[in-house]
Amino acid sequence: MKRIDSSKNELIKQWKKLHKKRGREKSGQFLIEGHHLIEEALRAGIEVHAMIMTEEVILPSSWVVDEGKLVLTTTSVMKELCETESPQGVAAICSLPTDTDLSPQLGKYLLIDRVQDPGNIGTLIRTADAVGLDGVILEKGSVDIYNSKVVRASQGSIFHVPIVKGDLLEWIHEFKRVGVPVFGTALEQASSYSAIQPQKNFALILGNEGEGVNKELLDNSDQNLYIPIYGQAESLNVSVAAGILLYHLRNETF
Amino acid sequence: MKRIDSSKNELIKQWKKLHKKRGREKSGQFLIEGHHLIEEALRAGIEVHAMIMTEEVILPSSWVVDEGKLVLTTTSVMKELCETESPQGVAAICSLPTDTDLSPQLGKYLLIDRVQDPGNIGTLIRTADAVGLDGVILEKGSVDIYNSKVVRASQGSIFHVPIVKGDLLEWIHEFKRVGVPVFGTALEQASSYSAIQPQKNFALILGNEGEGVNKELLDNSDQNLYIPIYGQAESLNVSVAAGILLYHLRNETF
Repeated sequence: MKRIDSSKNELIKQWKKLHKKRGREKSGQFLIEGHHLIEEALRAGIEVHAMIMTEEVILPSSWVVDEGKLVLTTTSVMKELCETESPQGVAAICSLPTDTDLSPQLGKYLLIDRVQDPGNIGTLIRTADAVGLDGVILEKGSVDIYNSKVVRASQGSIFHVPIVKGDLLEWIHEFKRVGVPVFGTALEQASSYSAIQPQKNFALILGNEGEGVNKELLDNSDQNLYIPIYGQAESLNVSVAAGILLYHLRNETF
Repeated sequence: MKRIDSSKNELIKQWKKLHKKRGREKSGQFLIEGHHLIEEALRAGIEVHAMIMTEEVILPSSWVVDEGKLVLTTTSVMKELCETESPQGVAAICSLPTDTDLSPQLGKYLLIDRVQDPGNIGTLIRTADAVGLDGVILEKGSVDIYNSKVVRASQGSIFHVPIVKGDLLEWIHEFKRVGVPVFGTALEQASSYSAIQPQKNFALILGNEGEGVNKELLDNSDQNLYIPIYGQAESLNVSVAAGILLYHLRNETF
């Protein structure tokens, strides 16, 4: 077991770089904080390089971690390393999973077009997992899903659902080709979602917080849906909208 | 028009205190940032004490603000005053609205039991507004809704829906007395929400992110609902769950 008492330690400096996309890409690693996320990563078979913990922490006996990977540190170094205000006293340095395999076939999918907020992306992935989707496709330029805010908001669901980045227009064409109906979301020239029957297969597109879904994608969907607003709010939060639509589209009997 | 060029100015120091609950309570004021929120506050008839803006900003002509209330400042002072990373260049100091009137009567309501995250509370209020609820009741100890994170996440909906704090158990009894069915949310001893018909009147209870709804409240509801999880996620985000349930319970024809 290693011991690190200073935040100037070279390893701590290196690991802090994992908060940035560049640091993750260079090293092929990412950092996660807290019991729940580490539990989910281990369960998903993610490779752990180092498990960093403060003295008070007792690791669950189900976590099999090589003694050589354990790093004991102080609360203040842990605070320095982690991004949350009150870290739980345990963090792990993990290998970025190699490319996820996802090909267009029958099933249920969420397409995410330029959603900006990492918390929203994480919550979308958590919702996609809860409703049992077969995959999530993010528009190419989207935030990295190993961004710690995405990981935290996903509550570990990034380890459960296949997630890829790609050209959404190409995916839409592919889904239509294999017989998966594609639903956009829009405020104009759209049908109320409640008029649509639950679907065995579907691909739902949700878009940027301010601008919604790109017009070209809407033009290429099979049908566009809206959620009626009965009050004075201008719109719903994108993750809330996703929850309403995904749970409506999913048929309990399938 | 006043001009403030230093963040050490007494007014700026005072206004910064509005980021804390204590500061808001002492002064009876709160601070909002950005065009959209200020627009919503003005529309709701909230009294504005000062409108602070940087030089590049042009106020919409529909905003009627006394010349004497305008304060011109620099981008760096604005950054100091505001909590967002890239302030929009306009902020307003407003009077806290006097107590909202809400009494138990037929209608549609959301009861929020100890939800911690201000962003979640704001999103719950935004969703309650969108679905056209008649009121939101927060458990007594909840975060102040004039907390800037709540205001921002609500996207201005705190100015649209009547929101009060109270003893949720008392409210549940009152709702039942006037004939409003009360639905709790729970993972055990609960019915799948989709088995419930839309309701003309209802009060829905959502609870703390980790612990859910207090058991005593669940014991006193008419019925408790759950949302089925088809994947590996343990649960849904509380605002997402609220969206699914509220849109299901709300009958479009009422």
